[in-house]
Amino acid sequence: MRIEVICTGDEVLTGKIVNTNFSYISQKLEDFGLSVQWETTVGDDRDNLLLAFRLAAERADAVIVNGGLGPTVDDLSQEIAARAAGADLVLNEAWLSRMQEYFAKRGRVMPPNNRKQAMLPAGAEVIDNPIGTACGFALDIGRARFFFTPGVPRELRRMLEEQLIPRLLAASGQQTAIFLKRFHSYGIGESHADTLLAGVEALVPDGSVKLGFRAHYPQLETKLTVRGKDMDDIRRKLAPVEQEVRRRLGNFILAEGDQTLERVVLEALAGQQATLALVETFTGGQIAARLAHLPGAGKVVRRGLVVPDVAEACAAAGLDSAVAADGLTRETAEAVARAARQQTGATHALAVLVDLDEGTDRIDFGGTICLAIASAHDTASRRSRIVGGREWVRLGAVEMGLDCLRRYLQALPVHERIDFEIDKPQVEAGAKGA
Amino acid sequence: MRIEVICTGDEVLTGKIVNTNFSYISQKLEDFGLSVQWETTVGDDRDNLLLAFRLAAERADAVIVNGGLGPTVDDLSQEIAARAAGADLVLNEAWLSRMQEYFAKRGRVMPPNNRKQAMLPAGAEVIDNPIGTACGFALDIGRARFFFTPGVPRELRRMLEEQLIPRLLAASGQQTAIFLKRFHSYGIGESHADTLLAGVEALVPDGSVKLGFRAHYPQLETKLTVRGKDMDDIRRKLAPVEQEVRRRLGNFILAEGDQTLERVVLEALAGQQATLALVETFTGGQIAARLAHLPGAGKVVRRGLVVPDVAEACAAAGLDSAVAADGLTRETAEAVARAARQQTGATHALAVLVDLDEGTDRIDFGGTICLAIASAHDTASRRSRIVGGREWVRLGAVEMGLDCLRRYLQALPVHERIDFEIDKPQVEAGAKGA
Repeated sequence: MRIEVICTGDEVLTGKIVNTNFSYISQKLEDFGLSVQWETTVGDDRDNLLLAFRLAAERADAVIVNGGLGPTVDDLSQEIAARAAGADLVLNEAWLSRMQEYFAKRGRVMPPNNRKQAMLPAGAEVIDNPIGTACGFALDIGRARFFFTPGVPRELRRMLEEQLIPRLLAASGQQTAIFLKRFHSYGIGESHADTLLAGVEALVPDGSVKLGFRAHYPQLETKLTVRGKDMDDIRRKLAPVEQEVRRRLGNFILAEGDQTLERVVLEALAGQQATLALVETFTGGQIAARLAHLPGAGKVVRRGLVVPDVAEACAAAGLDSAVAADGLTRETAEAVARAARQQTGATHALAVLVDLDEGTDRIDFGGTICLAIASAHDTASRRSRIVGGREWVRLGAVEMGLDCLRRYLQALPVHERIDFEIDKPQVEAGAKGA
Repeated sequence: MRIEVICTGDEVLTGKIVNTNFSYISQKLEDFGLSVQWETTVGDDRDNLLLAFRLAAERADAVIVNGGLGPTVDDLSQEIAARAAGADLVLNEAWLSRMQEYFAKRGRVMPPNNRKQAMLPAGAEVIDNPIGTACGFALDIGRARFFFTPGVPRELRRMLEEQLIPRLLAASGQQTAIFLKRFHSYGIGESHADTLLAGVEALVPDGSVKLGFRAHYPQLETKLTVRGKDMDDIRRKLAPVEQEVRRRLGNFILAEGDQTLERVVLEALAGQQATLALVETFTGGQIAARLAHLPGAGKVVRRGLVVPDVAEACAAAGLDSAVAADGLTRETAEAVARAARQQTGATHALAVLVDLDEGTDRIDFGGTICLAIASAHDTASRRSRIVGGREWVRLGAVEMGLDCLRRYLQALPVHERIDFEIDKPQVEAGAKGA
């Protein structure tokens, strides 16, 4: 099945808005084994919209049009859809009532220009939008089925997931049950993960499990797309493969599905009635910011301390200058973490201290990270060197700090070698992520 | 002049990568008074690439193609360009030498598959890429001039700015000198700014100054695009308009051009040989993170302290519980800022304390912000209420904290009413940004 996407609107065409709706649509379809072949972006312009609709109508089986369903004069999707299909625009009384209720619930009277949102091409199938006034609809134009969706991201997402994907799967003749299993890891690069997981798809010989990756440094997402007759069939197929992925990626898996590293850490702390103190240097508050915005973090994160360098971290910890003069060692990080724990009364403390290279930013610019986690029982620490520019080091240090805390709380070894670190202080350019 | 853009590559088409190259190209052209009419994204697929080239060749005057110039088998731009133009692929000896030098400089031998990057359609004009191995080129196909650019963002940006825009401006017959003047503000919404600035374009009667906006909450960018015979002509035209924009937006302008709020704050502190201590509650380290990553911040930002709530902020400040029990007042924030200054020995302290509404996140979820700035001379403070959901409040509190510090350092009033705050604790849904 050939699927095309047409994105509309001057804000997207002029680059005022980055087109994340398109990448969302395309990724989501990929997750369900469907592929977009072609994407077109045009502005709020009658001639270009009509041409885009006509061209797609000649080539595609299904076309998803995004945007242009609003109440203002520059929202043209219904009008041009009707012209392309050779149909009239007709008032949809049911949708008009829905909109009037929508406004009434909010104690407002519907402005007259919203009426336009209930004008649909004759013969169009209404596609429900339970959270907005833009009415989705489907319509045949040429050889293709067109699906018109709102530009507001949360309205688009809900309509795509609940209504369009089932229709597209049915039209594609695919088995309708499909499931995406995701694993999130830190410390393994995409090609390394690909090697580690070689052959796992073959554990289900009928080809209904597909392995994929999405790298967004410092994390890697490993995806298993599974098709089956129904969810029982899917669960049966998935079980041996997901078990094998867990076995091979091991301690590097930090979360699965919609879970995130920061939520795993926060829940592990909350589950142990633990509280946390943080000390950061070069990461400058980014570790605190990852945790502190989560609901419930207020009860767990007792204090985050941002200091400019290792010497200040030692000073804040009340350590004598002899320790700081030693330079950055695991022992320094351990002493800082223990002091932070005592100062704040938190059960756990994480100190992430970074000693940066001298000079300007460059591809082989690096930093040495010493981090430590102190609790009532013991203190764990690791030392690591990351190279690849200031931002690369910073992102890596944030993730390493959070992931080591996750490992500590899960009673896993805090130190396993990761693909992003180097063993010696010098590395050739271009080794980033190698 | 009709300009189209064709973006190529499976990673963009499948949504693995969000297409920021396109929004960059389109915005940059807009800044120079050029407009993209149509954008197409296709994957690494010969048939779709050829069709996309042919369709654009019939419609456009200029086509920018992005991506597909790499050394691997799925990089197809030169091959399909040659087919679409009916030309042969020919080895460009000059570019081959350039690549060999490029590798030699890095102490490496050029891998054989890079030779492919020097194969260009016969008759193509080479467009230099001083920072990569992908050779840009221009070629007539159909009625359009095609410009082929690399997918690596920094290579694309440099080629676009240095080489493509001058060619496009020349082809469009426009006066070649053009200048974009930008003002960044916090606290004024787009429609309010539009009203405030009504008529400024008319200060230059020949229409050569164009006003535009780009809103990215909490900041607003106000843009003046100026055309002229040369830079002297532009400066003469711009002078009265930029003066008027500064007068009308007044203290709300926080930076101009490439300058940012956080750099303005850091430079103002450094210029006064000042140092800074921060105390944050709900913003959770985000204020520290905005400043701490900047070069030079280590000498200025003495300490950032993240605490879960106002009571803990008071406790960390050594204030007695009576102050905390008062609830959140400007006086509380002032006492916390003064204590932070004394504890750290910093010359300045900023405390941003937030008292959040109860309950789950929703569109009318709000927070009360009390912030204070203490120095050796005095203490300034303000109280404000922002409504629009947790993230909206958080982003607003971060920006308000930094902007008030900027105002304080520039001897401007810390408190001027902003469009995002509300005066009473209740507000109707949908008032966000009103």
